Amino acid sequence: MSTAISPLASPFPDMPQIAGVTPRVARAQYKVWDRCDLTFISFDAGTTVAGVTTQSKCPSPEVEWCRAHLAAGVARGLVVSAGNANAFTGHKGRAAVEAVTAKAAAHLGCAPSDVFASATGVIGVPLPIDKAEAGLDAAFTAAPCSWADVAAAISTTDTFPKGAMTKAVIGDTTVTLVGVIKGSGMIAPDMATMLGYIFTDAAIDAAVLQQMLSAANKATFSCITVDSDTSTSDTVLAFATGKAGNAPVTSMDATGADAFHAALTDLCRQLSHLVVRDGEGATKFIEITVEGAASDESAHRIALSIANSPLVKTAIAGEDANWGRVVMAVGKAGEPAERDLLTIRFGTTQVAEKGLPVEGYDEAPVAAHLKGHDITIGVDIGLGQGRATVWTCDLTHGYISINADYRS
Amino acid sequence: MSTAISPLASPFPDMPQIAGVTPRVARAQYKVWDRCDLTFISFDAGTTVAGVTTQSKCPSPEVEWCRAHLAAGVARGLVVSAGNANAFTGHKGRAAVEAVTAKAAAHLGCAPSDVFASATGVIGVPLPIDKAEAGLDAAFTAAPCSWADVAAAISTTDTFPKGAMTKAVIGDTTVTLVGVIKGSGMIAPDMATMLGYIFTDAAIDAAVLQQMLSAANKATFSCITVDSDTSTSDTVLAFATGKAGNAPVTSMDATGADAFHAALTDLCRQLSHLVVRDGEGATKFIEITVEGAASDESAHRIALSIANSPLVKTAIAGEDANWGRVVMAVGKAGEPAERDLLTIRFGTTQVAEKGLPVEGYDEAPVAAHLKGHDITIGVDIGLGQGRATVWTCDLTHGYISINADYRS
Repeated sequence: MSTAISPLASPFPDMPQIAGVTPRVARAQYKVWDRCDLTFISFDAGTTVAGVTTQSKCPSPEVEWCRAHLAAGVARGLVVSAGNANAFTGHKGRAAVEAVTAKAAAHLGCAPSDVFASATGVIGVPLPIDKAEAGLDAAFTAAPCSWADVAAAISTTDTFPKGAMTKAVIGDTTVTLVGVIKGSGMIAPDMATMLGYIFTDAAIDAAVLQQMLSAANKATFSCITVDSDTSTSDTVLAFATGKAGNAPVTSMDATGADAFHAALTDLCRQLSHLVVRDGEGATKFIEITVEGAASDESAHRIALSIANSPLVKTAIAGEDANWGRVVMAVGKAGEPAERDLLTIRFGTTQVAEKGLPVEGYDEAPVAAHLKGHDITIGVDIGLGQGRATVWTCDLTHGYISINADYRS
Repeated sequence: MSTAISPLASPFPDMPQIAGVTPRVARAQYKVWDRCDLTFISFDAGTTVAGVTTQSKCPSPEVEWCRAHLAAGVARGLVVSAGNANAFTGHKGRAAVEAVTAKAAAHLGCAPSDVFASATGVIGVPLPIDKAEAGLDAAFTAAPCSWADVAAAISTTDTFPKGAMTKAVIGDTTVTLVGVIKGSGMIAPDMATMLGYIFTDAAIDAAVLQQMLSAANKATFSCITVDSDTSTSDTVLAFATGKAGNAPVTSMDATGADAFHAALTDLCRQLSHLVVRDGEGATKFIEITVEGAASDESAHRIALSIANSPLVKTAIAGEDANWGRVVMAVGKAGEPAERDLLTIRFGTTQVAEKGLPVEGYDEAPVAAHLKGHDITIGVDIGLGQGRATVWTCDLTHGYISINADYRS
């Protein structure tokens, strides 16, 4: 991780162990650095799994491996490599995934298909199999570690470790959900963002877990963007050990399903916001809500058009209530919009209404709002009932410094 | 104009007067600055006109005015205001366009509908009618000016005046085409870019001129991007006075039509490249060619995905041959692509082939190429015959400085 911590960082929460989950970390030395970079998590038998992965047309072999084995819904292990994305590495990359999952499966006494794998870091360098195997051996004999250790070991350009937790009641059983996530740049998830892992002791069918995770993803990970660039490796996996002892959730209508679904969505939202708060160079966390659009999908596209506009993002960095750039971003989205119906708000102050600047509006509360770390922009398209919220960060010199210097 | 000139700037060419066109400039003082900011160009009777405008759903009233009157294909005047975009100004903006064109028409003794208008600058402030009218009066009594004066008077954040010229032979008559353009940021034309004006002494029907301009636009202005942000005011207009005395070009098959079309396209390409060379903060001019895509349209979308990727643009700024980011941008484009068929080239050096980095490729020529000002990136998708070229610039601290400080 970088030494300069994001001004938007949150402290790592106090996260409990999850029964049936044993996390360990080790030093595979994928890069020359003084930190753990291999995570090996084992699950007790009976653990179900669900996942969402990048929409990239050039996914990493780890993403392809996860996709192929999610259908069975069963997990015994997870291996995460940081410092090397193993993406765009052809047959060598595929061989590396096979070697890593086979080695982990041998330790666990399970089928390789029950082991999930992720990798993050530089694109185009095959994951070194010898380092991965030595790291797995070291991890398997190491003592179990904390969630903070896991969050640190999966990170790359992140400036702080990111985790979140919540609870839900199923029947009369309280279940716990924890999650860790990494991500800072190349964040414009079209499905899932970077690498995120959720663990729960709830008993829940894989198919139901998948349905809930897909829905939660749509409202959380798919609603954040740092720089409009979608990773080749985005993966979010959710593992459920069933150790809490609740009556298994076998359908979306089962007792406690709603509560668990709400908790899962809340956890995903927390995790996704942490990624934005660690957006490369970020100094402002920006929530953009679009309402009155032709449809929810249309509102989502308009909101992302605003969130991805370099001119809007630099205006916020400069604490400038430049709503003209918001108009521009609405206009370029290609979605139904009527200039003379548009209303724009910064914080709680309306600055433009029905296609005209609000004359003599009080700039003081807007200026004060923009000086803070948490910025809200509201847009009413004035056409229909479509609504969406997305989250992003500002675009600063920090982003340029990080990315014009980062070497491949 | 800014005082720090783009390192990619070209000198203003020696551009001849065009018979039938009289350009004049004046100080309307739309902003507090020591420069001309109002351009008033008159055309002799018989001048035809064609134009392309922004696809923005929130266009300026000037764009709407031009669209409404292009159909008639007749022009007697053009008024360009710099320093105020008059966009998102509701009925006040529309009233300003009507006042400006009426005033110009009164001077020229023509119908207001024969006068075209553009405005560029801050969004959301209605164009002050009194300043525009006084500026028009001053311009009308001023001496005709040079094309360099026009290029300077239409500019805003541009760092150098931009013009280009070419000639064509129609039958046995040589005709001349000149053009001026402004633009530097908010450049991702979906149809035309910012403000560009082309003048020729050729005799050519408005409908034919429109067909040629639309086709030229598709291969030039619609293939550039600085920052992915599409302006509310993009307009390119072409005026033909007919004073050269050629046999009028009345169809795409007429004598000399091909030659004129080629010259017009060449002029548009020159003008569009000048805008990229003045991209905000630019230090590198980047040509991106995608071939082997499923279709030309698909190639165009992939090329723009690369050109608009902040991570690709910052890598070039850092002179880093980070082709992994190119893979990422191909993958996120959403177009047909097959990771294991992909080939990537920087300059003339292949760095990745068929989904694998080229082992031990010679980095020296790539490093040397990236140190230059003119960068080429080639991508072969390996799927079909689709091909496209787009042009962009790098993303630097200069862009952030310009846009986080520019006040609305």
